[in-house]
Amino acid sequence: MTLISENIETDTRERILVVAERLFRQIGYQKTTVADIAKELRMSPANVYRFFDSKKAIHEGVARGLMGEVEIEAQRIADRAGPAAPRLRELMTTIHRMNSERYVGDSKMHEMVEIAMEEDWGVCVAHMELITRTIGNVIAQGAAAGEFEVADLQVAALCSCSAMIKFFHPQMIAQTANKPGPSIDQMIDFILASLSPRAKGAVRK
Amino acid sequence: MTLISENIETDTRERILVVAERLFRQIGYQKTTVADIAKELRMSPANVYRFFDSKKAIHEGVARGLMGEVEIEAQRIADRAGPAAPRLRELMTTIHRMNSERYVGDSKMHEMVEIAMEEDWGVCVAHMELITRTIGNVIAQGAAAGEFEVADLQVAALCSCSAMIKFFHPQMIAQTANKPGPSIDQMIDFILASLSPRAKGAVRK
Repeated sequence: MTLISENIETDTRERILVVAERLFRQIGYQKTTVADIAKELRMSPANVYRFFDSKKAIHEGVARGLMGEVEIEAQRIADRAGPAAPRLRELMTTIHRMNSERYVGDSKMHEMVEIAMEEDWGVCVAHMELITRTIGNVIAQGAAAGEFEVADLQVAALCSCSAMIKFFHPQMIAQTANKPGPSIDQMIDFILASLSPRAKGAVRK
Repeated sequence: MTLISENIETDTRERILVVAERLFRQIGYQKTTVADIAKELRMSPANVYRFFDSKKAIHEGVARGLMGEVEIEAQRIADRAGPAAPRLRELMTTIHRMNSERYVGDSKMHEMVEIAMEEDWGVCVAHMELITRTIGNVIAQGAAAGEFEVADLQVAALCSCSAMIKFFHPQMIAQTANKPGPSIDQMIDFILASLSPRAKGAVRK
């Protein structure tokens, strides 16, 4: 294919996902048909099916797009120079804010998240692993600079992410929104304290 | 009322809850009727309604009973003497084990938990607050003994519980059961590290 037709293919795929996401948010995943999406784009359903095997594949593409936006922002913060502790705070706060904006707030979004967790579970797990690795990179930077003292980087990254589930997981964000609990800054303080150098003679993990 | 009739009243209430819990587990909450429960006990539905206003009240009673068992065990561990760190580990491990046994494993239990979270939310919140207070008591004991160094006990208790959501919350236990993540002991190590005395000059929370 020539460069121009490759771009048109990519653009069309993107346009389908943009329209699909809007319709899923407005009328819900179950009620949206491939014909609805095609009609919005003034193309035939057959043309949509050239790019996606099924409605499920479209949903997976929308989920991948939303998660990709969070991953790009996370990577940007991890790649910056400067002390690790403030960047870890910014990274975690950003993930919380972006997940809240994308996935929490109305029943249509709840429906999208539930479907993603049931049908696109591979995509969700890959995303969580990438976020954990990004957080792990910042922790490694902090350990190298002496800001953090960490026996096992992989375990520290897994525990830090697990400790933030209430602020990262769309279903937990929604459930615990107006319930008593620590603020996100208090939780991040708690995690930073765990990563910080120990007093001599204190219990080592 | 005499002592004997008070005991009979309490016993009958308990028997209704025992049978209700068994039927909810076996055939599910939605499919179980008050008439089913009454029939198992060889009493009339009217007699059941003397003790509980509605099926919802029965469900709430079953949930309260299950949560009460966990609270009693937690209190027992908190009341024991001895170093706080091992008791905090035992307390958190016990809550995880008991919640897994009670609420995770089959779809009928998922249904019970979902209904509790929607309809008995007050009971769930009161339970979570009591568990947080119990964990806070053990942290306070550790702080008094110099095992832990904690700026704000309430915040430390909230953060410790929040960090354990993956191991405490029935829906999170079920969802993350066979997925990559820290072991419960690694997570408890992480929390103990956060509570441990800091190195001089390290970042204080």
